[in-house]
Amino acid sequence: MDTLLIVKIGGNIIDDEQKLSAFLDLFAKVSRQNSTVLIHGGGKLATRLAQDMGVQQQLIDGRRITDAETLKIVTMVYAGYINKNIVAGLQSRGCNAVGLTGADGNALLAHKRPLKNNIDYGFVGDVDQVHAAFLNGLLSSGHTIVLAPITHNGEGQLLNTNADTIAQETAKALSVFYNVSLVYSFEKAGVLLDANDDATVIPEITPAAFRELKEGNKIFAGMIPKLENAFAALDNGVKKVIIGKAEELERLVAGTSGTTIVND
Amino acid sequence: MDTLLIVKIGGNIIDDEQKLSAFLDLFAKVSRQNSTVLIHGGGKLATRLAQDMGVQQQLIDGRRITDAETLKIVTMVYAGYINKNIVAGLQSRGCNAVGLTGADGNALLAHKRPLKNNIDYGFVGDVDQVHAAFLNGLLSSGHTIVLAPITHNGEGQLLNTNADTIAQETAKALSVFYNVSLVYSFEKAGVLLDANDDATVIPEITPAAFRELKEGNKIFAGMIPKLENAFAALDNGVKKVIIGKAEELERLVAGTSGTTIVND
Repeated sequence: MDTLLIVKIGGNIIDDEQKLSAFLDLFAKVSRQNSTVLIHGGGKLATRLAQDMGVQQQLIDGRRITDAETLKIVTMVYAGYINKNIVAGLQSRGCNAVGLTGADGNALLAHKRPLKNNIDYGFVGDVDQVHAAFLNGLLSSGHTIVLAPITHNGEGQLLNTNADTIAQETAKALSVFYNVSLVYSFEKAGVLLDANDDATVIPEITPAAFRELKEGNKIFAGMIPKLENAFAALDNGVKKVIIGKAEELERLVAGTSGTTIVND
Repeated sequence: MDTLLIVKIGGNIIDDEQKLSAFLDLFAKVSRQNSTVLIHGGGKLATRLAQDMGVQQQLIDGRRITDAETLKIVTMVYAGYINKNIVAGLQSRGCNAVGLTGADGNALLAHKRPLKNNIDYGFVGDVDQVHAAFLNGLLSSGHTIVLAPITHNGEGQLLNTNADTIAQETAKALSVFYNVSLVYSFEKAGVLLDANDDATVIPEITPAAFRELKEGNKIFAGMIPKLENAFAALDNGVKKVIIGKAEELERLVAGTSGTTIVND
């Protein structure tokens, strides 16, 4: 099977024009050697636009609620502005990108998140199904897919969806067709022994090493759910999960930078 | 060759939720029998958003200038909000829609319009090339394409582009693969002998009939450039151009409503 790289970038890249441009250079370069999917999060533009439009951001327990106005804003910003500028940027670098949401080609079907502790998070989607054959059709004809973090419920409702989850579900589904490496770009150099020291990056984590790190309390608590998700992806067909800096994309892919998470 | 319907809808449909919903019902229905492309214009949402954001619309000689802020807004509204809501609406009606701009898959390559009479219209694109093979790949795998009126220049710049022009260029390019009928939805029932009376619609116009109508001054002057464009499309491979009400889509396609423009 061919290798497929699925790369998720976060707001720290998207919000910084120079960082984004440098990242797209790297991404276009690795796209010459591999099939690729890019998944982007939101960044601060949606928040700024909401302010400009006088839309109050609702927070419950520190979590943002996607009400109808917020959904409109994130659809405009994520699926419109960010997605299409990334696509045009990749096209200008010789990378034949196609930008999609989960509604396009029914790529990602989701359902509105049910109430939790009586809290309605609004138009937030949890992914039910990835239409891997449609995505593979585009990939196998030489396209790079750029996914915005918006899905749909099949009944006409768009839904705001976590980009990390989209990356993971897409990686699992495309493992039927490819040897998938899932790259999460991150502000830190990888999984660190000392959260304040980029030099303490752990190059490889296997399930056995993960148990040891957890038992020895050697790992930052916030990383544990991320690593558990990574192992869940590996258990569902993904070959490698790589965590590290977007600026080091080529070295992440080569395994000479960041943290690679693999099964034994 | 199979038949392909390319339908352009304007702001009067997009701005009215009920009209849009009724139109999508009809469009999904005709998509069961034919390959289809839908091209949507903008509507008033972009103007309202610009007002909410405090962006002044620049007009020169009554024509809107697409400055950088306006381009950002139309990209958000056309490629994000409108395009993705139409796609989700079609998906919910069993029509496997994929929403694209001209940047996606390099579908429509354009150049920034040169200065005219020393006026810079800003980030407005004139279409150079339609990547018909890419669009045909999606169509022949059973997808409906929903095009937003945004193109790119291949150098990373998105461009605001007239939806009528996109419809016409796409129709010409896809004539290599299909018998294309190009449908322009319109507020009137078709080309009228009396602009105020929908009962005076002319069912068919051939080049000979067009000459006669022009010579007899029997046709509203504003229609002449539209008809000239229609004949130009026919001269470039398009089989029929149909002008009429979106609400009558099925009858337009069947030739029992609206005006059908054909070569002799």
